[in-house]
Amino acid sequence: MTDETQFRPQARAPRGFADKRAAVLRAERRIVEAVSGVYEAWGFEALDTGAFEYADALGKFLPDADRPNEGVFALQDDDEQWMALRYDLTAPLARFAAENWETLPKPYRRYAFGPVWRNEKPGPGRFRQFIQCDADTVGSARPEADAEIIAMAAAGLEAAGLTRGQAVMKINNRKLLNGLLTTAGVESNGQKLAVLRAVDKLDRLGTDGVRLLLGEGRKDESGAFTKGAGLNAKAAESVLAFLKAGAETRGGTLSALSNVIGGSAEGDEGLEELARIDAALKGLGVADDQALFDPSIVRGLEYYTGAVFEADLLIETLDEAGKPMRFGSVGGGGRYDDLVARFTGQPVPATGFSFGVSRLAAALRAAGRAEADAVRGPVVVIAFDQAHMAEYFSVTRELRAAGIAAEVYLGSSGMKAQMKYADRRLAPAAIMLGGDEIAAGTVTIKDLDLGRELSSQIADNAAWKAERPGQQTIPRAGLVAAIRAIVGDKA
Amino acid sequence: MTDETQFRPQARAPRGFADKRAAVLRAERRIVEAVSGVYEAWGFEALDTGAFEYADALGKFLPDADRPNEGVFALQDDDEQWMALRYDLTAPLARFAAENWETLPKPYRRYAFGPVWRNEKPGPGRFRQFIQCDADTVGSARPEADAEIIAMAAAGLEAAGLTRGQAVMKINNRKLLNGLLTTAGVESNGQKLAVLRAVDKLDRLGTDGVRLLLGEGRKDESGAFTKGAGLNAKAAESVLAFLKAGAETRGGTLSALSNVIGGSAEGDEGLEELARIDAALKGLGVADDQALFDPSIVRGLEYYTGAVFEADLLIETLDEAGKPMRFGSVGGGGRYDDLVARFTGQPVPATGFSFGVSRLAAALRAAGRAEADAVRGPVVVIAFDQAHMAEYFSVTRELRAAGIAAEVYLGSSGMKAQMKYADRRLAPAAIMLGGDEIAAGTVTIKDLDLGRELSSQIADNAAWKAERPGQQTIPRAGLVAAIRAIVGDKA
Repeated sequence: MTDETQFRPQARAPRGFADKRAAVLRAERRIVEAVSGVYEAWGFEALDTGAFEYADALGKFLPDADRPNEGVFALQDDDEQWMALRYDLTAPLARFAAENWETLPKPYRRYAFGPVWRNEKPGPGRFRQFIQCDADTVGSARPEADAEIIAMAAAGLEAAGLTRGQAVMKINNRKLLNGLLTTAGVESNGQKLAVLRAVDKLDRLGTDGVRLLLGEGRKDESGAFTKGAGLNAKAAESVLAFLKAGAETRGGTLSALSNVIGGSAEGDEGLEELARIDAALKGLGVADDQALFDPSIVRGLEYYTGAVFEADLLIETLDEAGKPMRFGSVGGGGRYDDLVARFTGQPVPATGFSFGVSRLAAALRAAGRAEADAVRGPVVVIAFDQAHMAEYFSVTRELRAAGIAAEVYLGSSGMKAQMKYADRRLAPAAIMLGGDEIAAGTVTIKDLDLGRELSSQIADNAAWKAERPGQQTIPRAGLVAAIRAIVGDKA
Repeated sequence: MTDETQFRPQARAPRGFADKRAAVLRAERRIVEAVSGVYEAWGFEALDTGAFEYADALGKFLPDADRPNEGVFALQDDDEQWMALRYDLTAPLARFAAENWETLPKPYRRYAFGPVWRNEKPGPGRFRQFIQCDADTVGSARPEADAEIIAMAAAGLEAAGLTRGQAVMKINNRKLLNGLLTTAGVESNGQKLAVLRAVDKLDRLGTDGVRLLLGEGRKDESGAFTKGAGLNAKAAESVLAFLKAGAETRGGTLSALSNVIGGSAEGDEGLEELARIDAALKGLGVADDQALFDPSIVRGLEYYTGAVFEADLLIETLDEAGKPMRFGSVGGGGRYDDLVARFTGQPVPATGFSFGVSRLAAALRAAGRAEADAVRGPVVVIAFDQAHMAEYFSVTRELRAAGIAAEVYLGSSGMKAQMKYADRRLAPAAIMLGGDEIAAGTVTIKDLDLGRELSSQIADNAAWKAERPGQQTIPRAGLVAAIRAIVGDKA
């Protein structure tokens, strides 16, 4: 083949796509497995859809667009229809639910995990493929369905390894601010969206910055002017009072909110929904420090129709400059009652939660959970002599039967390189079975961790060689027990 | 949102892409988990690459092709480079190994599973996305590396649920036939390929058909003529003798082959490799009924350079017409010493095995393993009264804490529809907690399987209603124990 091909391609992955090796995969798989277990225990069933959806089903594009490739990876099928790789797991769920609505048990509760793709500019830590994990209830308008998703998300994060107090679910309801704005005389959707955008910047700009953006607008340090939502002062102050209504307990926030909102039918509806979410969370044993009401939570701009929530990490990590920083949100969700209706024309209420698996894995690393995901290599049987290969294989067979990962070195290098290989694989032990050992019915075992540790204490190289730290020669019949004693310490 | 969107897309998945629900996913995940466990125990480490590779790295296309979309899903990145979704897991491995060769522990042993994509015409049972599971050793020229892959594949299939005798690994070596042809005076690569193509049809055309294709050619029933490889009669007979050299044991086949081959350096090399594979398989405890030598195995036409092997299922299943048929191959592999060299220019020997997860799942269903993958729903708590929702949630919380999947019905339908929902979810039991029960401190439990069974025995509908089969009212404190007794039977 080599001689037939003049052209030699460069070996490189496309920009924004990561190769993941064992340690990263172990961490991500452990998360997915733990969270899937929780979701199944809560009665959610698995679903997996294909990587492609028709572009029109993704909802971002008109079907006659010339090349609908903005933000997604799209291509034209041989029947001329545009398909795109899914950019989240919600759009495929909406398509699936609409396609199978008649035959699904209702409400339809599903969880899903898998890669999603975004055709965006890649950068450090910004990938064009990443794994999401979602759970949604389709076909229930009950606030209890939101509460259940919130409680389950909290249980999932705990199962993934976050301990109580490291994360909190923050809950809000779109109807509150909408109702408040209606009462304040704001009617246009554009103005309401501008208010949401202003509120979304509370973290970054603080109360004074948001006040400017709620009013005429704000000039930043560079002198650039952002036009505001154009609220009058009274309306702006009532929005700011609303944002500050969060209290330590869910009940406290509900009381504070009822003073601030009130009056509009939509606001009252939002309050009633939050009260029912609170009651259901109590039934589910979710305490105030696990899930609280926070009127400043926005979660994107359009799309959601009622309750919104996000999972915030309270643990601190270090930013690139080494300064402590909050990790922030690892996932979010809310109620979206219109997505399935795009297909069917009939309203189908739905609510769900989604988190990024890689981001949660990074959060767990920051929380000190990396240890659990260290990947140990197998026990390595050193290959001295072609004539004894069958014997080496027989040793690995014995070890595997005892539940111990093992391999024979299969390269062509000498003893020294083989020990180095075992070391690089983080093998717990190496097994040496030379002609002398075979003749004597013995086997030599080197505890590689112990060897590393002891050799670091012995300054004199000659002494180290003489002592052979961590090395023992024992009868062949005692092999499995001896290896088990070594590996057992390191499990 | 609904009123803003005039256009209503049709809810349908793109052609050739399947939605997979819980039972299918459970079967596939169980296979992947079991096989991954085996591969890790054998010292192989996980790797996951992104969905896209640069088209030139996939090896099928020249970099200046106008639109390299044949057989793969390809698109042009914003820097004009063509990317394509991976069509197997070997090409990305070759790219990864070449890219990281300097820093990898060598030999590099990796396993991988995940979707691959083929842009082919979809049809019944023919999908454009499916899951493959691969294991490869890169950087070892030893026949023992082939043997290990073969033994591990056999162990993987067994771990996935195939019992001894349901599958066999069939092994061959490209060098045997090549050597034989060289001895017979066949020099051109084209003629050798034509011979391979003829041999590949042995199953379908039998010895006489292959004899014609080895010689001048063959006219089929329709009268269409296929040009043959153009061997003389003596050479054709030696090929046919080679194909029939398979015996019951690996040793027997080796003896038979050494009579048929012999003489050419390449043939002798192939024989020597098979002998070493046999010795290693013995060391690994792989019996003759688990892995045999079969000179008629071809495995595709180009690509492989030495040993080739496939996993054949021996179990019978029924074809679409209801006639018994062999299931055939579920996976295959072999030695490919040139793939990494495409990038590096340096030869890097490699060998591996790949199987289709969905195909193996289908095989396991045919072998009667479907039962294990039946998906039971959660225990369903009937929702009678909004006022008691917190109490219902509290029940699910108790059950989950006891390891029992449970949910509260969250739709808006009445009692009868709720029972039907529980039935459709294959719930083991329904829990009824009405006002009477709550006042009396009791709970009513219905064993849904028992109810179904008993009701089928009671012909009289009125009697059935009076007897309420499988239904019991017990003190609330006994709930978890009672449900555990019901669920325990069905685990």
